[in-house]
Amino acid sequence: MIQVTKRVEFCAAHRYANPRWSEEENRRVFGKCGNVHGHNYILEVTVEGEPSPDTGMVMDLKALKDLIIEAVVDRFDHKDLNQDVPYFKEKNPTPENLAVVIWELLEARLEGRQGHRLHRIRLHENGSFFVDYYGEHAGHAERI
Amino acid sequence: MIQVTKRVEFCAAHRYANPRWSEEENRRVFGKCGNVHGHNYILEVTVEGEPSPDTGMVMDLKALKDLIIEAVVDRFDHKDLNQDVPYFKEKNPTPENLAVVIWELLEARLEGRQGHRLHRIRLHENGSFFVDYYGEHAGHAERI
Amino acid sequence: MIQVTKRVEFCAAHRYANPRWSEEENRRVFGKCGNVHGHNYILEVTVEGEPSPDTGMVMDLKALKDLIIEAVVDRFDHKDLNQDVPYFKEKNPTPENLAVVIWELLEARLEGRQGHRLHRIRLHENGSFFVDYYGEHAGHAERI
Amino acid sequence: MIQVTKRVEFCAAHRYANPRWSEEENRRVFGKCGNVHGHNYILEVTVEGEPSPDTGMVMDLKALKDLIIEAVVDRFDHKDLNQDVPYFKEKNPTPENLAVVIWELLEARLEGRQGHRLHRIRLHENGSFFVDYYGEHAGHAERI
Amino acid sequence: MIQVTKRVEFCAAHRYANPRWSEEENRRVFGKCGNVHGHNYILEVTVEGEPSPDTGMVMDLKALKDLIIEAVVDRFDHKDLNQDVPYFKEKNPTPENLAVVIWELLEARLEGRQGHRLHRIRLHENGSFFVDYYGEHAGHAERI
Amino acid sequence: MIQVTKRVEFCAAHRYANPRWSEEENRRVFGKCGNVHGHNYILEVTVEGEPSPDTGMVMDLKALKDLIIEAVVDRFDHKDLNQDVPYFKEKNPTPENLAVVIWELLEARLEGRQGHRLHRIRLHENGSFFVDYYGEHAGHAERI
Repeated sequence: MIQVTKRVEFCAAHRYANPRWSEEENRRVFGKCGNVHGHNYILEVTVEGEPSPDTGMVMDLKALKDLIIEAVVDRFDHKDLNQDVPYFKEKNPTPENLAVVIWELLEARLEGRQGHRLHRIRLHENGSFFVDYYGEHAGHAERI
Repeated sequence: MIQVTKRVEFCAAHRYANPRWSEEENRRVFGKCGNVHGHNYILEVTVEGEPSPDTGMVMDLKALKDLIIEAVVDRFDHKDLNQDVPYFKEKNPTPENLAVVIWELLEARLEGRQGHRLHRIRLHENGSFFVDYYGEHAGHAERI
Repeated sequence: MIQVTKRVEFCAAHRYANPRWSEEENRRVFGKCGNVHGHNYILEVTVEGEPSPDTGMVMDLKALKDLIIEAVVDRFDHKDLNQDVPYFKEKNPTPENLAVVIWELLEARLEGRQGHRLHRIRLHENGSFFVDYYGEHAGHAERI
Repeated sequence: MIQVTKRVEFCAAHRYANPRWSEEENRRVFGKCGNVHGHNYILEVTVEGEPSPDTGMVMDLKALKDLIIEAVVDRFDHKDLNQDVPYFKEKNPTPENLAVVIWELLEARLEGRQGHRLHRIRLHENGSFFVDYYGEHAGHAERI
Repeated sequence: MIQVTKRVEFCAAHRYANPRWSEEENRRVFGKCGNVHGHNYILEVTVEGEPSPDTGMVMDLKALKDLIIEAVVDRFDHKDLNQDVPYFKEKNPTPENLAVVIWELLEARLEGRQGHRLHRIRLHENGSFFVDYYGEHAGHAERI
Repeated sequence: MIQVTKRVEFCAAHRYANPRWSEEENRRVFGKCGNVHGHNYILEVTVEGEPSPDTGMVMDLKALKDLIIEAVVDRFDHKDLNQDVPYFKEKNPTPENLAVVIWELLEARLEGRQGHRLHRIRLHENGSFFVDYYGEHAGHAERI
């Protein structure tokens, strides 16, 4: 088994807010993260599988890139996550929640393919903070 | 003469728009940059001078950092440039225009100090685009 | 479960020495690493947990940063590890030993908090060498 | 247990081809990757073990570097992988296949040593694509 | 005047050789650089001009990127510079010579445009070596 | 004219002190920089010249690297600048002063060679601070 990781970038705006809280509570908890601001997100998508004996590749790299562009980048790049993405009307657009959504978007597209599966979503919000999500598979606890 | 460069980061949202243009014209020229989105801006401030014989420094590094934080980072970090910064009601918040504003904010604060002067503003919008501004000094054309 | 990673930097001096060895033995084993020198250490602290339904965060990012500054950075930054940190009177200040100490300092502060736990310490000594430490939890062997 | 990772670089040319396929089939599957081109490969070798109580190190860092240079860098650096490396007469020189070869070259040299073992090969082909290989040890599935 | 810099990547193979020299002379001067190998080249193109009062941009960034892709990347990416680029039948494909060619390819396409001009080509061969070329304009010596 | 830049790394310890000042004055001015600490310095050496028609190179890259290793890296790497380098008994080991010394060490070795000359020393103390020094040539002010 080999893991292959493709890295892409998208730029988006967001603000932190819990719609069930008062403005004061939001301000107290989220501070300046409650202002509209933005990031260059760096997304790393890891797919795991056996390399094909014919191609020596776990997955065609161009197909993987196209799939990430279509499912993720075209959806979030140059967008205001709170305003433009219905999912974040309800959920706070933290990197944690964003990573889970990205997992779901990509897993749905990778599921039917043979010989590999989505392994990890790593999302960098800036040069000093990133999150990792490995999905909710059985055996997750033993796998990290 | 030695040049010293300090690098800081700030996160902001923006959208490109010319208020004198129709929506169609804005969309045609700016494309997806006309949507609210955001960046982790990396700012590099270069100050030029002779190192002090007493300290071996062109300028106290902590003083330079504090000055950049006060004049620039506190003003733009975790902000929506179009909404929160009056200057960008009129001017499009491109890195070019942002670099000129940052130059003006910093030069005003560095002017009275002896032995060094602002040399360059470099502003990275993301990992593949940055701008440089050297001010409008006499002799600028000969100096780079 | 999601893992969040915060990155900070600290600058320190050190030299390699085993106080139970002769000077010749130290020189033979450690070579130029036995001279006083220094590094910009890059520390990555990973905390694992479920994002809060209220905030969408595994842990408040500012609280995590403050905790790392107080427990680690203020202790090691701009220090001579051999001279200024009692722990390294006995232990050689290798990245391996430093990572274990940092784990212990942070775990003690994170233990009582609900919903997350320290997952990994990654410490970069320079651009081409880093170490990872995952603590000594039961089940460690199965977890990476 | 601590993991230590050493990073080195080597520059090589390659082209993708399956010798059992027609030229058309190769062109259809591999596209421009079928042309001779090249990369600066960044290799990260991770070794796992207990730090020695005498040295505080999992493995002498210079010995690890020398071993990587001798086994890997001297073999692949400034080479055309397809022409100069017999192994890639048969196997397509993808990062996946390259990582497996590098694992085998290093594991053979690390095997007899006490107290540590090869843990992971990470190979970056460029700034946006890398692969990970953890070998085929029993218990691999539980370890990642 | 503001300078804007766009960064792109291309991957190519090359080998150093002087066709007027004997094999021994080539081997003696170029050593392992005489073997076919390759690099991920990072190209930074700098264009200088006054930002447009309408757009706040020195040059439309997408137009600049498209022009670089068409003139440079499509010509050199996934190529063997010695075999596939006629210019390098005669000239050694060093970064120095490559930078001059890239200057000429881009300047020809930028010349007719108003309000900006090509300022610098920076070409990184790997993480520790790059070259800068500023063209051969009158006044070059005073401008850097 | 083309400029070629070679990047190397060295690790050193230092502390800021003015031997003519009282301990209190040193503490007041230099703060925690007065403690022994250290850095991974990244040095970029730029040499300017015409590429040789025979080799296409401004200067043989291996010769440049060897010269930097001999003149600079072997002198400062894995050293305590204040204790081990006589020059810094008198001068404060700031990056500014270090850049000037490095210039002098390299210029003396490059002077006799034909067709190129030292253009710039850039020295990074860490990921957010660097200095540039262009020597004291006649015409310096016009050249940067």
